[in-house]
Formats: sequence, C-alpha cells, structure tokens
Amino acid sequence: MAEIQQKFGLPKRYEGSEPSVWVEYIQLALDYKPLNLGQGFPDYPPPKYVTDALLEVAKGTKHHQYTRDFGHPRLVEALAKLYSKLIGRDIDSRREVMTTLGAYEALYATITGHVDQGDEVIIIEPFFDCYEPMVRYAGGVPRFIALKPKNTEAKFLSSGDFVLDKAELEGLFNTKTKAIILNTPNNPLGKVFTLEELTFIADLCKKHNVLCISDEVYEWMVYKPNEHIRIVTLPGMWERTITIGSAGKTFSVTGWKLGWAYGPANLMYNLLMVHQNSVYTGCTPIQEATARAFEKELERLGSDESYFVSISKELEPKRAFVAKFLQEAGFKPIIPEGGYFMMADWTPLESLVDLNAETDKYKDYRFTKWMTKNIGLQGIPPSVFYSEEHKSLGENFVRYCFIKEDKNLQAAADILNKWKSEKKQ
Amino acid sequence: MAEIQQKFGLPKRYEGSEPSVWVEYIQLALDYKPLNLGQGFPDYPPPKYVTDALLEVAKGTKHHQYTRDFGHPRLVEALAKLYSKLIGRDIDSRREVMTTLGAYEALYATITGHVDQGDEVIIIEPFFDCYEPMVRYAGGVPRFIALKPKNTEAKFLSSGDFVLDKAELEGLFNTKTKAIILNTPNNPLGKVFTLEELTFIADLCKKHNVLCISDEVYEWMVYKPNEHIRIVTLPGMWERTITIGSAGKTFSVTGWKLGWAYGPANLMYNLLMVHQNSVYTGCTPIQEATARAFEKELERLGSDESYFVSISKELEPKRAFVAKFLQEAGFKPIIPEGGYFMMADWTPLESLVDLNAETDKYKDYRFTKWMTKNIGLQGIPPSVFYSEEHKSLGENFVRYCFIKEDKNLQAAADILNKWKSEKKQ
Ligand SMILES: Cc1ncc(COP(=O)(O)O)c(C=O)c1O
Ligand SMILES: Cc1ncc(COP(=O)(O)O)c(C=O)c1O
Repeated sequence: MAEIQQKFGLPKRYEGSEPSVWVEYIQLALDYKPLNLGQGFPDYPPPKYVTDALLEVAKGTKHHQYTRDFGHPRLVEALAKLYSKLIGRDIDSRREVMTTLGAYEALYATITGHVDQGDEVIIIEPFFDCYEPMVRYAGGVPRFIALKPKNTEAKFLSSGDFVLDKAELEGLFNTKTKAIILNTPNNPLGKVFTLEELTFIADLCKKHNVLCISDEVYEWMVYKPNEHIRIVTLPGMWERTITIGSAGKTFSVTGWKLGWAYGPANLMYNLLMVHQNSVYTGCTPIQEATARAFEKELERLGSDESYFVSISKELEPKRAFVAKFLQEAGFKPIIPEGGYFMMADWTPLESLVDLNAETDKYKDYRFTKWMTKNIGLQGIPPSVFYSEEHKSLGENFVRYCFIKEDKNLQAAADILNKWKSEKKQ
Repeated sequence: MAEIQQKFGLPKRYEGSEPSVWVEYIQLALDYKPLNLGQGFPDYPPPKYVTDALLEVAKGTKHHQYTRDFGHPRLVEALAKLYSKLIGRDIDSRREVMTTLGAYEALYATITGHVDQGDEVIIIEPFFDCYEPMVRYAGGVPRFIALKPKNTEAKFLSSGDFVLDKAELEGLFNTKTKAIILNTPNNPLGKVFTLEELTFIADLCKKHNVLCISDEVYEWMVYKPNEHIRIVTLPGMWERTITIGSAGKTFSVTGWKLGWAYGPANLMYNLLMVHQNSVYTGCTPIQEATARAFEKELERLGSDESYFVSISKELEPKRAFVAKFLQEAGFKPIIPEGGYFMMADWTPLESLVDLNAETDKYKDYRFTKWMTKNIGLQGIPPSVFYSEEHKSLGENFVRYCFIKEDKNLQAAADILNKWKSEKKQ
C-alpha cells in the first residue's frame, strides 16, 4: 500500500491542493444543522416558467442526445441575441459564444486556454476563490491587488467605499501580464465597478495588450442607483475581453450548472480546445430549457415583468433587512451594491465569542465555526477570498448570503437577538 | 490585431491541438444531410421511465440548487449500491464514487489527476480519441499498442479476433509507466476483453505498480456468449483501478452527459482535486433523475425487465442486420462482441469510389467524405482512433453506429443496394 500511496500522489502541478472551504463548511452544516446563510443559492423555488421549461423538455423525446460541443444551437442563438442587444454589437452565435458546465467551467476553460507557463494574471481581492488555483494549475503566476476601504468610520459602509489604488494597479502591469480577472458585481463584497474604474482598467489592458476576463455572473442583481456596466462595451475592449455568465445565477437555478462565455472568435477558440478535451459537450435538456427561458426574457427585456428586472427588486428588501439586523446585533455590515452576499465586520462582537474554542489559523474561520456550533448561524469566512499574503484583510469579516426566504432571514435575526439578549443578562 | 493574435495563441501544452473529428463530421452532416451512422447515440426515444424521472424532478422545486461537489448524495448512494453488488465489495458512496459531466469528464479528471510530467501511459489501439490529448496535456507520454487480427481470411471477422501481442505489451511496461487505459467493450472495435486477457493485463499492472483506468461505458451492451468482466474484480486490482461509466450510454440519454468513476478513496482523491478546480459540481436535476432511474434498475437487477438486460437484446438484431447488409454490399464487417459500433473494411469497394475527389491525408477520411457527399451515408473514419504512427491500421475501415431505428438501418441498406445496382449496370 505504501508503494501505491507514494506513486499515486497528486501530480506536481496540483501539489498543495486542498479540499475547498465549501467541502468543509457543507459538512459543518450537515453536522450542526445551523441556519445556513453560507453558500450562495436561493432556499426558495426558482421562477416557475424556468422549471416549467425543463418540464416541457423532459416531456418530449427530442432533447436527450448529444448536442453541439461548443453549445446547443438554440441556446447559443438566444445568448447571442441577448448579448448583441446588451453590448450593442452583433455576436456570432457559432463562433463567439460557448456554453459550459456553469460559469465555473467557463472560468476554467478561459484561464486554462489562455494562461501559459510563467504568465502573470492580475486578480482583484476579494475574489471568487477558484481563480487562484485555476491560474496556478495553468502554470501562471497570480498577482494580487486588494480593494481597500476609503473610509472605515461610517456606520454603514458601502461596497462602493472599497477601491483599487490606481498606482498599485498600474504597477502590476508588465510585459509578463497575460490577463486580469474582473468580477462585477463582485463576490463576496458586492462591489459594482463604476464606469470610471472600468475605464481605468480597460486603458491599462489596452496599453499593455492584456486579456480581460470579466466574470459577470451577478449581472442582474444590481441595486439602484448602481448600474451594471459591461467592460466589453468600452472602446477597444471587444477584441480583448471574454465575458462570463451563469444560468444558475441568472435564473436562480444554481443546480443547473449552466454557464457561458462570449468574446471574439480568436480568443474563444482557446476555450473550445480546453472544453473539447475535458468535457467535450454539455447537457442537452438543461441547455434546451435554458434557451427557452432566455427566449421568454428576450420578449420582455427591460419591462417590469422581466425576471432580470424583478430579481433585484425581490432582493433589495432582503438586503435592507439583513443589514439592519446585523447592525442591530453589533456587526458592521458593508452594504453591497450588487450580488446577493453581504460582508460584515464581526469584531465588535469579539468579546462575546470564544475564539479559542477553535484551532483554525484565521480568526474568521474560528468566528464562523464557533457561531455555527454555538449560536446556530452559519456564514462563510472571507479570508478564503484573499491570497495567502492578504488573508488578514478578510479575517475581521463574515459573509452572509441573503437570497433566502424572508422567514429564514427573520429566523437569523431572531437567533442573533436571542444571543445578544442572553449575553446582556 | 496581429499583436493580439500572437500574444493570445494557445498555451504551449495545447499546441498542435485541432478541432476534433466530431466537429468536422457534424458540420459535414449538416451540410450534406446524409443518413448519419456516424456519432454514437440512439436516434429513437430513450426508455420512458428514464425521461419520466427527469419530468418528475422538473415538476418539483427541490432539486434545482447546488448539490454536493463529489456527487449528488442520492446518486452516489445508488451507484455505490449497484457496483457493490456487481463487483462483490462494499463501496463507500462518499469517498469511493464521484459523478462527472459525462464519462468524458471522468476520464479527464482521472488522467489529469494522476498523470504527471513525463509519466508514461499505455493506450490500447484503436482507442476513444480523447485519451491521447488528455494524456499529453497532463504532460504524459502515451505509449501505444494496437489490437491486431489473428486471422484476416474469414468472411466474418469478429472483434474477438483482434488481440494484443503479449510480448509487445509486456515490453511497454517500465518504471515510468503510471497507467494503462483499458476500454471494454471497446469503441470503435466492439472487442470485449476476455478473462484471460484481463488477467494478463492485471498481472502486469500489479507487477509494475501501475494504475488501471478502465473505461466501461458500454458495460451493458454485450452480445452472448460474451460477458463483460470488470477488471477491478480480479485479485489485487481494487487498489489500483479506477472504473468509469456513463449514464448517457447506460440509459440511452447521451445528452444528459452524466458520468462517474469509482475506485479506492486515495486514488479518487486526485480526481476530486481536478473536478473541484475545473467544474466544482455537477447538474442537480440530472443527477437526481439518474439516481431514480438507477433505483428502479436496482429493484429489477438481472431480471428480464431490466433495461441492462433488454438493451443488448434490442441491439442484437440491429447488429445482425447491419453486418448482413454491409457484407452484401461488399464490405468486410468485423462483428462486434459489445458496444454499438461496427468497423468494416471498405477496400473491396475501392474501385467504385473516387478517393481522389477528396484531399485528406488518410484514405478512410476520403472514403467517408466521398460516401457522405455522393452516396448519402455517413460513417466515421477509424484512423482517428489510432496514434499518428499507426493510422494506417485504421485506414481501410469505416465505423458505423447501429443504435438506430430499424427503418433508418433499412434506409442505409437501401442506399448501399441502390448504389451497387447502379454501378453494376
Ligand atoms: C463570482 C462567481 N463566479 C462564478 C461562479 C460559478 O458559477 P456557476 O455556479 O454557474 O458555476 C460563482 C458561484 O458562486 C461566483 O460567485
Ligand atoms: C469509450 C468511450 N468512453 C467515453 C465516452 C464519453 O461518454 P460520455 O458521453 O458519458 O461523456 C464515450 C462516448 O462515446 C466512449 O465511446
């Protein structure tokens, strides 16, 4: 057995890999059954017209066999039509759109298809945690830059208060820079990048001939007066941008694991090579159902019935409610401009928590584990969204997800209330 | 633009990649609308209880969000139960089974998770065409060995007549050998490896401490008196075998793109690392539906109503019919012992075909393209299933798929009949 263990360890490029935080925290939730505001998915039914689309597909016998590898024809058509309108440019459904197993595979195909040994990739922190290992496995070198608060004094901090240091960002670009990964609206912070910020990034990309990988899975969850701007629409950016989206996020069906990427054909070709040699093609019935859902949305684009409009309206009161109860409980929440996560500074509550009861290296791990086990409320430790050297920037925070039923958000409020009032006695 | 083209070419590890044969031949079919016996999927409805399972899942609201990364709990349970019975050993559903986006992703995760720079991997030809690029992208070195006919004189050759040269196989094993990829029943040949052959391979794996990657996606399509033997059941093989299967093939729903791998936890861990960093998790409704289909099959395992029994019975007359009309048309078919493909030597018809009308390097490409364009019948050129140095072994053949409606198989027979009778005049 020892012989087997030794020979069949991980290949060198995977050395140091560990099960992701999600594995550990999903198990924690199974063991302690807390109120779970950890993982990012709705705990209430998706829109009925979306699941009905799958139902209709399942009823038929036509959409159960292999479909086109680069993407199911009806779906890439619908995506091309939608994004052609949104970015004001004709997208070729056959060569400029690819569908994937979630936005996750789109990120993987983009990074693996473009990053070569020694290429540098700029990653803005906090970041969706898969970016870093994906860059490393491709042989790339991640270069990190953190969003930092302009003003930490305010009672209600907004994600808009977190900004990039322009000189620092500029300093990261050099001849080895292959790509920058942008995520707007950002997970976990909820930051929605402004036109001015995006223009600054775009200008650097153009100046240094750098690819922009724009992860926009939360494009429809943006709270007024903020607006989602697609960096691909800025002058000279089409030819160097790959934009990534997710049906799971767009239609509140995270379990469908359907994503896509769009961009110019020459850049998309690299993604196809990875896709073709790792999964080959996607799931036909899910793609057919998603195509039908998009067709419905295309008919009512911009109107109040559009789910792309109503989803943010549905989430806005939840955001307000969570911000309020967190603040009342003593947290310092950061109000997100987009997405459905909220980061909150928990350190004002430090004296009520026994951090020594846990042995993890980072304080936010200890806080979140202690809360799960002792108070029954689960969040995610944001240090996972920072590079090794910047973990301390995440340690004072916890991330909660608020695309949850009102009664569950109320239950979270009650849990915190009860805890605080017991402590006061 | 030139600047962009140059900087954003494929990373070195992907150099030399080309769109796969499938892309080209799917386009060919779209352009010429031939009777298509090319790609491997049924052109008739899947079993109703399988699509009904998806329908039931789509009706509900429970199975549309993220599920467990290593595999949906209900599905890994069902798989563990099934394979525990089939291999006579208790499989741990949580650590010894992983579900994937088709068997394709299972192959990718296995190869990428185990093959390191410079590792040698033995591949038996003809092979499902993705094995080679997957090994190369992982930095591995494929070592090829072809199945060769014992006897080419017979009118009806069987896939069983194709065998490995034992000394040649033995000679490929050395200290650099990390793995061997076995595919039984084999695509494209249809060979079902015998106990004696598997024992010989297993003994070499044990002697040289080599991993066996066993692709068994056609495990339920085996024609009497042949029997599918799982190499993992041979003594001492559990600890060094990863076995791969496909719901697409098992339940005739290739578009569901659901696969799995099972094996000992220490070997499976490597697959999880790749899965976690490329796609993270699979599609929930498809996994739930597949779990229900498996539960039904578990109830009736081994009985005549079992789809795992009836599928081969359904295919057997199709196999006989195709062999007959090919032979009557002048081909020399190789009768497959398993799977749903048939290779046939087309060279007796060479004088009727204008190979010079096509410019491809390999004769089988020219034959299949000419047939598609001029006669209206499409097959796949088997040289794609051979390494560069052995392409000539495939050049005299064409591969037809026979999991097609009887009326379409009859149409194929009619097409060939008409062609031959016109030529005779
Ligand atoms: C920023 C971001 N990108 C990508 C993904 C992955 O999306 P999918 O579930 O479509 O793979 C997520 C999921 O949480 C995300 O938050
Ligand atoms: C031998 C073999 N392995 C694997 C696969 C891929 O199976 P899936 O469609 O489940 O990804 C195929 C598909 O044709 C195959 O023939």
